[in-house]
Amino acid sequence: MQINIESKPAASAAYDNRKKRLVETIDRLYVRDARASLQKMLARLHPADLASVLDDLPPAHVVDIFYAINDTTTAADVFSQLPANLRAQVMSESKVEKLARVLEQVPPDELADLIGDLPEDQREQLMALLGRESKDEVESLLQYDPDTAGGIMTTDIFSLPHTLTVEEAIENIRSREDVEMVFYLYLTDEAGRLAGVVSLRQLLLTRPGTPLHKVMNRRVMKVTTDADQTTVAMLVDKYRLLAIPVVNEENVLVGMVTVDDVIDVLEEETTRDMLKMAGTSESETLTHSAFKIAWIRLPWLLAAFVGGLAATAVIGRYEAILAEVLVLGAFLPVVMGMAGNVGVQSATVAVRGLATGAIDVRDTVPLVLKELRVGLLLGSFYGVILALYGYLMHHSLALGEVVGLTILGNMTGAALLAVLLPMIFQRLKVDPAVATGPFVTTAIDILGVLNYFVIASWIYDL
Amino acid sequence: MQINIESKPAASAAYDNRKKRLVETIDRLYVRDARASLQKMLARLHPADLASVLDDLPPAHVVDIFYAINDTTTAADVFSQLPANLRAQVMSESKVEKLARVLEQVPPDELADLIGDLPEDQREQLMALLGRESKDEVESLLQYDPDTAGGIMTTDIFSLPHTLTVEEAIENIRSREDVEMVFYLYLTDEAGRLAGVVSLRQLLLTRPGTPLHKVMNRRVMKVTTDADQTTVAMLVDKYRLLAIPVVNEENVLVGMVTVDDVIDVLEEETTRDMLKMAGTSESETLTHSAFKIAWIRLPWLLAAFVGGLAATAVIGRYEAILAEVLVLGAFLPVVMGMAGNVGVQSATVAVRGLATGAIDVRDTVPLVLKELRVGLLLGSFYGVILALYGYLMHHSLALGEVVGLTILGNMTGAALLAVLLPMIFQRLKVDPAVATGPFVTTAIDILGVLNYFVIASWIYDL
Repeated sequence: MQINIESKPAASAAYDNRKKRLVETIDRLYVRDARASLQKMLARLHPADLASVLDDLPPAHVVDIFYAINDTTTAADVFSQLPANLRAQVMSESKVEKLARVLEQVPPDELADLIGDLPEDQREQLMALLGRESKDEVESLLQYDPDTAGGIMTTDIFSLPHTLTVEEAIENIRSREDVEMVFYLYLTDEAGRLAGVVSLRQLLLTRPGTPLHKVMNRRVMKVTTDADQTTVAMLVDKYRLLAIPVVNEENVLVGMVTVDDVIDVLEEETTRDMLKMAGTSESETLTHSAFKIAWIRLPWLLAAFVGGLAATAVIGRYEAILAEVLVLGAFLPVVMGMAGNVGVQSATVAVRGLATGAIDVRDTVPLVLKELRVGLLLGSFYGVILALYGYLMHHSLALGEVVGLTILGNMTGAALLAVLLPMIFQRLKVDPAVATGPFVTTAIDILGVLNYFVIASWIYDL
Repeated sequence: MQINIESKPAASAAYDNRKKRLVETIDRLYVRDARASLQKMLARLHPADLASVLDDLPPAHVVDIFYAINDTTTAADVFSQLPANLRAQVMSESKVEKLARVLEQVPPDELADLIGDLPEDQREQLMALLGRESKDEVESLLQYDPDTAGGIMTTDIFSLPHTLTVEEAIENIRSREDVEMVFYLYLTDEAGRLAGVVSLRQLLLTRPGTPLHKVMNRRVMKVTTDADQTTVAMLVDKYRLLAIPVVNEENVLVGMVTVDDVIDVLEEETTRDMLKMAGTSESETLTHSAFKIAWIRLPWLLAAFVGGLAATAVIGRYEAILAEVLVLGAFLPVVMGMAGNVGVQSATVAVRGLATGAIDVRDTVPLVLKELRVGLLLGSFYGVILALYGYLMHHSLALGEVVGLTILGNMTGAALLAVLLPMIFQRLKVDPAVATGPFVTTAIDILGVLNYFVIASWIYDL
């Protein structure tokens, strides 16, 4: 963690302009071969900004400009923040020794993530570039499931024996400029087991001669390497921690997960939830082939397809009514669409509420009753309008009654079903996000169509 | 930020059981009137855990047990982490002086959020309970838009004059146990303007006699009180900061936003995005009336309603074909549903990609081409199946051709439209999340139905 050098907020028009000018200036310096000025310019930028500037430069200049970053640690930092496609470009267009020098400085956890994403052959090539120490670290990190504490932790962790004094600890921190941000100092016993923690603030406030084990907090919040990343994120979020230590089965300290990793995990989990609700399962990137994306989405669409066929079969059974009252077919889109839409609203509220903890399973009854009333209100409103529309446009009181009652029934049913299913899924410990996509939509379609024709055959007495 | 006392990961079955036992034990101690044991038990729990335990206790016991928390600072911390309905209960069932004592310890930013959410009359009641200083602070915080840096910042900020020495700074930190977590020390000039920043680590590493302004970093990343909360969150996330100082127009330091606030903002923004995509605009809680919720959702449904009526009108124009080939009506649900579903998939990928920065407007052309291919692949697959189904079930080659071609066209068109609209909205600086809900769905419905009947009239030559 470093104090950045930019002092203007991003994401504004002014920022966009400033960035555009920056990109132009840097590219101009490169084209003019003004190497010294280029290096000086780059040295003034924060790694996060350098990464986003590189992303905007002409592709043919990117790699050369990347290597004009003088400081290898900064270059490594920039490298790990580059988008995947740019990183691939840098790797393929670099001289081996140059690349190796940068990679040596990338933190082992990011290196492992990066290497884990590569195809088998490129993975070996890259591993061959690393020094013995980095290689061992990366290999040990690659053994962890990427969705666990082991998979997201950094091993660049600063810990000290709990037998040292405060003074000795400070001396130690002084001599280790390289480790990742330190705000908690983890303390270990002679076997490397996590014994306690002190904050830097405590170090500042304690007499220099005091042994650390006298001031340390022994009840450290920690996770094991196999803890699910969602659990880790939830703990850091709930207890408002800046980092959480990771231990193995023997309670030996092996790494830590910092709050910035947790932000990434939370975003990733939310993305997954949203994609599941939409009925697809993986983040798609520009690097995925269309074939692969279609393959990912195909099974989710199958549920909707089967549901659609079922609705089709339902209508087939009522063909006689449809033949008699053709206009019923014309009203199908609005009758189905309104139920589907109110269903998506209710389901999203329920799924997101469960994910953020705003609601839990115990709220099922009041929530369902609430949705019942909301569905009735919305259904009555749109039911009356549609009934009037049907009556006035087609001069048929019966049609008005059918479409009005159907909308009322379908919207109420959809709101109810869409909140009930996620709650049931949650109780069954099945991911509720999955429920909203195919399940709710399909159920609402079939029941909605059935309801429509049942009401129609009743009112028209056919 | 404090080191918590719980050492087991949450969100597991074991955790649930442990929590259940804890709740039972605490309630038993309360019922038996074993006050000393109860207080001791509560004192051992982390505020976050206390809040979740209180949430599970019998409602009639909650308030008494809450006041059995001995330490007022802890009680305040617990209070601000309680769910809204429990907080309301505590406020209504408390003796005024007891409540005032707790509220005095709640950080002013959380107090302002809390008071800001209350109805006018309760707000006044609560403000009357506060001491002069808290009241002033809360009132000044309430002036900021809740979605800006001013609205989310804490004013409990630790800063020192930049003229002090390192030794004097440490002495100062020692004497101020009460302020929120300190990891960056902000330094101000004689007018209170933000002059620089040092980390606690730097303090540890610098000779005691050195003046702070010699070691401080002068290029501090900062935001003004009116900066949008999304911008603040993005900066903290991008530059991996633990906190960012907030200044007014005169560059006077007035507060800071910490990384845990940023996590809340990110979650809130995502929730908003998801709700917008679903076609509703606000988080709904159990405290909202059904009427209010229906009122929030109503306008979003209107777009879908008008779209549905348009689709109905389209079918009305093709009633002659429908009369001739009744079964076309039966296939409406599957033909419309599949297009809608693939549309939601594409739109979600695009909207979420734009929100996380995984894609940007410059990726429009490759992304649209990719979706075109994905739509063609999925459309071909389901088109062939539906064509076969139509042909085999109804012994009509023409029907097979119509439904097969329609699915192919509708799914391709939907995938294309659903990725194009969010990209266009983004370029026009309109929130792309809004695009997916009503716009995409409605457009897909109308165009899909039109395409269906155009193909049908062409193939059946009617």
